[in-house]
Amino acid sequence: MSALQAFRYGIQVAVFSDRPENEPVQFMTPHSYADSFDDVDSMVEFAKKCDVITLENEFIDSTVLQELQDKSGTPIFPSPKSFSLIENKLIEKQTFENAGIPVTPYALVESDEDLKNFGNLHGWPYLLKSSKGGYDGYGNKTVRNLEDAQKAYEELGGADGRDILAESFVDFTHELAVQVARNETGHVIYPCCETVQENHICVAVKSPAPIAPDLQNKAQELALKATQAINGKGIFAYEFFLTTDGELLLNESAPRPHNSGHYTIEGCVTSQFENHTRAVLGLPLGDTSLIKPAAAMINLLGTHKRDAVMENTKTAITEKNGHLHSYGKLQSKPGRKMAHYTLLGDDLEKTYQKSRDVTKGIEI
Amino acid sequence: MSALQAFRYGIQVAVFSDRPENEPVQFMTPHSYADSFDDVDSMVEFAKKCDVITLENEFIDSTVLQELQDKSGTPIFPSPKSFSLIENKLIEKQTFENAGIPVTPYALVESDEDLKNFGNLHGWPYLLKSSKGGYDGYGNKTVRNLEDAQKAYEELGGADGRDILAESFVDFTHELAVQVARNETGHVIYPCCETVQENHICVAVKSPAPIAPDLQNKAQELALKATQAINGKGIFAYEFFLTTDGELLLNESAPRPHNSGHYTIEGCVTSQFENHTRAVLGLPLGDTSLIKPAAAMINLLGTHKRDAVMENTKTAITEKNGHLHSYGKLQSKPGRKMAHYTLLGDDLEKTYQKSRDVTKGIEI
Repeated sequence: MSALQAFRYGIQVAVFSDRPENEPVQFMTPHSYADSFDDVDSMVEFAKKCDVITLENEFIDSTVLQELQDKSGTPIFPSPKSFSLIENKLIEKQTFENAGIPVTPYALVESDEDLKNFGNLHGWPYLLKSSKGGYDGYGNKTVRNLEDAQKAYEELGGADGRDILAESFVDFTHELAVQVARNETGHVIYPCCETVQENHICVAVKSPAPIAPDLQNKAQELALKATQAINGKGIFAYEFFLTTDGELLLNESAPRPHNSGHYTIEGCVTSQFENHTRAVLGLPLGDTSLIKPAAAMINLLGTHKRDAVMENTKTAITEKNGHLHSYGKLQSKPGRKMAHYTLLGDDLEKTYQKSRDVTKGIEI
Repeated sequence: MSALQAFRYGIQVAVFSDRPENEPVQFMTPHSYADSFDDVDSMVEFAKKCDVITLENEFIDSTVLQELQDKSGTPIFPSPKSFSLIENKLIEKQTFENAGIPVTPYALVESDEDLKNFGNLHGWPYLLKSSKGGYDGYGNKTVRNLEDAQKAYEELGGADGRDILAESFVDFTHELAVQVARNETGHVIYPCCETVQENHICVAVKSPAPIAPDLQNKAQELALKATQAINGKGIFAYEFFLTTDGELLLNESAPRPHNSGHYTIEGCVTSQFENHTRAVLGLPLGDTSLIKPAAAMINLLGTHKRDAVMENTKTAITEKNGHLHSYGKLQSKPGRKMAHYTLLGDDLEKTYQKSRDVTKGIEI
């Protein structure tokens, strides 16, 4: 979706992927490159073709990015240095803690003793996370007791030398997200929205989040502070827990356009993709106000394992102020993010309910 | 810009162009074909790759389109039959006149006698137009007397057997445009907007047009009637004169997304490009309401003959509710349509003035 915005600015797009074919963006450019994300040399040809490089995922190691930037002379934004501060969950938490941003209680665990102590201190069950590569619940394990924890530790690669993080469950009333765009011209902050999660996957977003304005503002302040802490240039998304005690804890960050910000395409004056593009080009950033008082975004997940085809969309696309996006993935499977739907309205709850109602029959 | 909307729906795009390279859309797909628009055989391979074909210009003869559809089995929308009714200005005028739509006074001219009679009947100067291939004033000549007319007739190809149309100048207060999307599920009509022309080129659009609501409605009705007259499936644009007598005369039609509708990208709930895509796919059509009370679109024309680069855009892109689009054309020249800018607001004249002010320093 960043490519579509680049095109709107008359910019040509080349893409480097770790999959040789059938990535949706590969259908949008004659300039496709594919190889391993670990092989700098294979990326240099691609990089030299570009004036600037940005990323839509965080699966490339910051040392690889740094080497690519050095070898090709093509700048990468967010910078490899910014990446290095958040690609590893341990360093990420330390970075943000050092900046005065509250994070969920965590510890690096390296032994059975550590696994036991964390549970005893913060309560069972808790989460074990691989310090790298997690996504939509992959790379995370919920552990209920020491035996669980030992098993998960092994499965996550702890025995193979991978850093494993323990993280306590937090009692929360809302999961929130804020996107920030920032570059040398300044910064803009998107509204604080609520992410509705089921089975560790975001199924919907409501914006603005149905919480007190001072908490919205606080989340926005923390998100900006986090972006400054990593000297971010680009677009960044931050996910927070609003605890039952009314505290905001930073949970995760992403140095790229984020699913929680897809509603901004129609919901805000300037979308996260446009501000992503502007930010990495060093252009002044655009207004992030909501266009209507309320926006709801529904993630449309695969319902069948089959060649992707979207059915029963009529109710959704004939709803005024409803906007359907399909990602052009060729294969669907249950739970895979295939498409999304944004509905704008005047009342948040009504808009959200309506967005669920008009999309509930969609099969993909 | 239709391709960008197709991508939003997860649709892959192949393109056939009569230029071998550097067409902006050729940078947006790995599936580019190029050859003459007259050579059906060269298009068949392209056509067979597609599930449906649509057009962004009208430079292909309807007989070629019909043959392509027959040979490839791939449907083309708008249909070759619809095209055949409007590709020739003479047939177009007859089609719309027969449907009860007032058109500018015209006549087929075939002799010096005809040239003289038209001027004597409708007044000098008048316009001579080639019946095919006109665009932004190309293919049109203003003639002040018989000598002028004879010269223009030759230059436009009259002596070579091309149909030449005489058209009288009309005293008008406004030039208007209306877009209509239509398919088997129904139709939608965009607001009646005003096109501001300088040197036969549209330099700006104001929506809604600053005319009485009953005239806006009347223009919308005529636009729908015209679309029905050609049994149109797709998106269509109609340009009208509002005469000093308060009469609406249909001037031109286009069977494709049109410059006069570019403001709908941000200005309307559903853009002309989205409804174009929906229409040719047979999907229900989307709401065409304005998002804000007023929209102004400025065509950004080339200011220099040079490799295209856009300068001094800061004021425009930092204006709230301002949206810049560049078409990605590689070469600029004075007067070439290179980009456009849309500004939304509450008051039409203020929004229009502001849009001119913030774009006036842009150089391309």
